[in-house]
Amino acid sequence: MNEKLILHEYAASGNCYKVRLTAARLGYPLERRQYDILAGETRTPHFLNTVNANGRIPVLQVGDRFIPESNAACFYLADGSPLIPERRFERADMLRWMFFEQYSHEPNVATLRFWLAFVGEAQLTDAQRGQIEARKAAGIAALQLMEDHLATNRFFVADRLTLADIALYAYTHVAGEGGFELEAFPYIQAWLERVATGPGHVPIGAG
Amino acid sequence: MNEKLILHEYAASGNCYKVRLTAARLGYPLERRQYDILAGETRTPHFLNTVNANGRIPVLQVGDRFIPESNAACFYLADGSPLIPERRFERADMLRWMFFEQYSHEPNVATLRFWLAFVGEAQLTDAQRGQIEARKAAGIAALQLMEDHLATNRFFVADRLTLADIALYAYTHVAGEGGFELEAFPYIQAWLERVATGPGHVPIGAG
Repeated sequence: MNEKLILHEYAASGNCYKVRLTAARLGYPLERRQYDILAGETRTPHFLNTVNANGRIPVLQVGDRFIPESNAACFYLADGSPLIPERRFERADMLRWMFFEQYSHEPNVATLRFWLAFVGEAQLTDAQRGQIEARKAAGIAALQLMEDHLATNRFFVADRLTLADIALYAYTHVAGEGGFELEAFPYIQAWLERVATGPGHVPIGAG
Repeated sequence: MNEKLILHEYAASGNCYKVRLTAARLGYPLERRQYDILAGETRTPHFLNTVNANGRIPVLQVGDRFIPESNAACFYLADGSPLIPERRFERADMLRWMFFEQYSHEPNVATLRFWLAFVGEAQLTDAQRGQIEARKAAGIAALQLMEDHLATNRFFVADRLTLADIALYAYTHVAGEGGFELEAFPYIQAWLERVATGPGHVPIGAG
């Protein structure tokens, strides 16, 4: 990696943690810039004009170019490394789990963690409170799909750790903060332990 | 492509159309199997056990293996072709727009189209009806982000058509069916025309 890497982030975000964990496993140094999303620091004109017009973190800065979307940033870092399978089917299968993560897992598991552990239930709008039950059920369904897959697989794809595991680990290992009971998912728990004891692993609170 | 390709789909779905459009641009024949999602045909035990445990279409079948998630299926088909940029940054940037599509665009633009044009407003639950306004605003924000990008770019990445364009074209070109007014987005309209006049293009209703 010849160009300087800067991660624009909010440290407690699982989406940001994915990028740090990918960089750590590959041994790439990252400069980190913090934004308080609760204070709207990713919605300022400066942020929208220079970092990400979508007003979200993480954004990986590579020299003077920017990559929003956590899983795309991880793909950039890991491209050409063993974290992305070489075989065509397995590479697509890895992306399948990463898109599943952003569509079926993160909007439920991560959103409930954010609402309950960061915003606080008393501060939620009525519209948010009205969505808790449906998001809880959808989050449990996503975890059950993972559980069933992990009952017969050590990792999500290719029998080794890939970006699919990193993407799904980020919010799953802190799902308890959103009210999800991981005790009901023993295969997920064993997989979380396999990921956390791998070489180069860093915890979400590190740095 | 040595193995037989079967697309498990619901023809009117933009997510399924992405896979057909990618295959058409590459000249790959696809066998198509239809499921009526309004009748629950993707939630039967047979579908869940053999095609996709997540109960969703599209699923691309490659020989006896299955790839759920529309954008992962497109990546499988296009891997090694000009529809995916060779340069590392551009490849990640393409995925950035594909993750944006699934996280910020599809849940709003596609969901409103499904609710209003397929389910019918009178059949919506109160919970769904209560989300229309927020999804409309979020869908308009996603379209505006595309509009701003297309004001200075002919295509989303690499100055040529890639999977990013195919992924975003699928639901954008029928956004009017969800109540979005594309007349307000002239750069999007010009880009839709560029995509639709490209070699190998097929319309959503084809086949």
